[in-house]
Amino acid sequence: MKAEIICIGTELLLGQIVDTNAVYLAQELADLGIDLYHKTIVGDNLERIVATLQLAWSRADLVLLSGGLGPTQDDLTREAVAQMLQEPLNFCNEAWEEVQAYFNKVKRIIPESNRRQAMYPLSGQVILNPGGTAPGILIEREGHSLFAFPGVPHELKLMWENSAKPYLQKLLSFNDGAVLTSKYLRMVGIGEAAMEEQIMDLIVNQTNPTIAPYAGRGEVCLRVTAKGRSLEENQHALAKTIGLIEARLHSYIYGSDETNLETVIGQLLKKNGLTLAVTESCTGGLISHRLTNVPGSSAYYLGGVNAYSNQLKIKLLNVPLSTIERHGAVSPETARAMVEGICTLTKAEIGLAITGIAGPDGGSTEKPVGLVYFGLNFRGETFIERRIFPFDRIGNKEGAAQVALTLLWQHLK
Amino acid sequence: MKAEIICIGTELLLGQIVDTNAVYLAQELADLGIDLYHKTIVGDNLERIVATLQLAWSRADLVLLSGGLGPTQDDLTREAVAQMLQEPLNFCNEAWEEVQAYFNKVKRIIPESNRRQAMYPLSGQVILNPGGTAPGILIEREGHSLFAFPGVPHELKLMWENSAKPYLQKLLSFNDGAVLTSKYLRMVGIGEAAMEEQIMDLIVNQTNPTIAPYAGRGEVCLRVTAKGRSLEENQHALAKTIGLIEARLHSYIYGSDETNLETVIGQLLKKNGLTLAVTESCTGGLISHRLTNVPGSSAYYLGGVNAYSNQLKIKLLNVPLSTIERHGAVSPETARAMVEGICTLTKAEIGLAITGIAGPDGGSTEKPVGLVYFGLNFRGETFIERRIFPFDRIGNKEGAAQVALTLLWQHLK
Repeated sequence: MKAEIICIGTELLLGQIVDTNAVYLAQELADLGIDLYHKTIVGDNLERIVATLQLAWSRADLVLLSGGLGPTQDDLTREAVAQMLQEPLNFCNEAWEEVQAYFNKVKRIIPESNRRQAMYPLSGQVILNPGGTAPGILIEREGHSLFAFPGVPHELKLMWENSAKPYLQKLLSFNDGAVLTSKYLRMVGIGEAAMEEQIMDLIVNQTNPTIAPYAGRGEVCLRVTAKGRSLEENQHALAKTIGLIEARLHSYIYGSDETNLETVIGQLLKKNGLTLAVTESCTGGLISHRLTNVPGSSAYYLGGVNAYSNQLKIKLLNVPLSTIERHGAVSPETARAMVEGICTLTKAEIGLAITGIAGPDGGSTEKPVGLVYFGLNFRGETFIERRIFPFDRIGNKEGAAQVALTLLWQHLK
Repeated sequence: MKAEIICIGTELLLGQIVDTNAVYLAQELADLGIDLYHKTIVGDNLERIVATLQLAWSRADLVLLSGGLGPTQDDLTREAVAQMLQEPLNFCNEAWEEVQAYFNKVKRIIPESNRRQAMYPLSGQVILNPGGTAPGILIEREGHSLFAFPGVPHELKLMWENSAKPYLQKLLSFNDGAVLTSKYLRMVGIGEAAMEEQIMDLIVNQTNPTIAPYAGRGEVCLRVTAKGRSLEENQHALAKTIGLIEARLHSYIYGSDETNLETVIGQLLKKNGLTLAVTESCTGGLISHRLTNVPGSSAYYLGGVNAYSNQLKIKLLNVPLSTIERHGAVSPETARAMVEGICTLTKAEIGLAITGIAGPDGGSTEKPVGLVYFGLNFRGETFIERRIFPFDRIGNKEGAAQVALTLLWQHLK
């Protein structure tokens, strides 16, 4: 079954609203194993809505609409569906009773304009809306189905759960009955192209499960999706493919699905009963912020020093003034002194220090903007790393924080 | 000028990713006064991308693409644009030099597969990407323009700002002659509804300039947009309307346009020759991160202590153990001791301390999740504030950081 989503509303084209309905419906379709090929957002303009509907009706088996079912003049979904189907709009008693029942329930008087909400295309069936005034519309014609939901997210969700989803599940069980199951493998320490090269044969020969790579800042991700008759069948197929991928990429994979690096680091620290302290210069607190985004991080994260000024590096971390004078605040020597200082100060088993030049100013030929030194102290032993980041100030901070957490994870695992 | 946005990527159809690029581009187009009639999301399928491009090319003057410019097999934007235009794909030396320059800058070896990123449609022009490997594509043909950006949000934003926006501004000034000029007034310490009430008469009677309110987390914003024949004419109209708004809301307005609270705070600190130190508990480094996002912040920001554990509060900030035992780590007394401790430790003229319960656990009836105490020390005098935030863990951290910076700004101005 091929589906298409159309979201209607000028506000969605002004960038004021993130279109959560389309994201929700896309997830639900994926769970049902229904292929979604297009999502379209169109404004409150009758002609353009009709054209968008005609295109969708011509190429999809299932069309899901969100928005435009309210009582005002710019709510045009009813008119557009009727025009697309070349059907008249009629007053629907069943829908009107629904609208009235809602107003009675919330003890409000019905404005006359709400009668618009009971105008239905001739072949339109009423979808009950337990959460609001706007009933939905279901059309079944020529082997196509169309659902029109209101744009209010919680109303759409209720109507999806109560009406559309059971309807589609029943329809699917008469058809091929396929279910989609996806798993995401998250990696650090390798680029997208290098990762792909290592599994190119698997990607080229993929049929089911399918494999797709994605890149983020300082991390890459593989999506593996199986299509089968049941969750169990899919999990079996996924386990096989993921086994092949893990055999080649295991040293980069830090987690799967919705996790992130700071959460995995927290789990490893907790499991091993280790404590962590951080001293940041150029990242200015970002690493601590990410570490403390994890609920329960106080169990292993002791805290740290944002040693932005040399004065604090010297006073709190005991970095020798001579080290800064001889090698500079951005140097492997200072990174070493900082990380050893934070461990002494906090008695943490693991220390992390970052010193660098975030930019846009402060660089030189030998020490360009983007240069960062990382110090990691692991139960008394210190490791130093050096990187150069090519981004703007905030990008360099984010890149450095990601590398710092990557180094920490690589030592912990 | 009519624009259309197309976002390419199967992941966007699986509901795993909220499509922030389309929201960003929609806002930017609105600011330029360019009409956006359609946004479409299409998966990594060549045939469907080409069909979507053809439709957009036929009905829009400006097509903006996001995604599908990476080096892997499922990055199909280059091929699709070439097919839509019926042009061959050629190896483009200029683009290849860009890709190589990026790899040289980050001192990594180029995988062979990255050569794909230098394949360009015959009429394709290179858009520089200062933030990543994928250069963008600009097509100008038959009165239409097309920009293809990579899907990584910060790269897309940089390329929009550096290339596409100036290009479009120039193009617009050659067309209808009408120029749009917007100014944003940024406010803290007042809610959206309360702000709107104070200028309701101006909003109701608006024609040109127009006034639109927006709400963010812990701040509100007014966009004032003038449409006229020249920048000068617009600036004159804006100045008049903004004068009326400022007369009523001046005590909340911290800045205008693309500034932010941390930048304005930095300017005030610099102007007054003051230094600042911060000690964070529940915000875990976020405030320091925001303060150090400002270029040149080392001139006034000395650094700070992320006193996550009580041990660090006692050892570094000299918070008496008895204060923590008697009143708890989240208390006005501890906030006071923390802020006075950080000032003594760093000799900063201004100190800021935050202690609270970010959640989801750790709350009680008297001290619920979301409770935060703020301590502000201004040349020796300490002020304490108390707030309760209703969000999730990260939301509470963000809310607390915003209030902390608001308090700081209110004392500085």
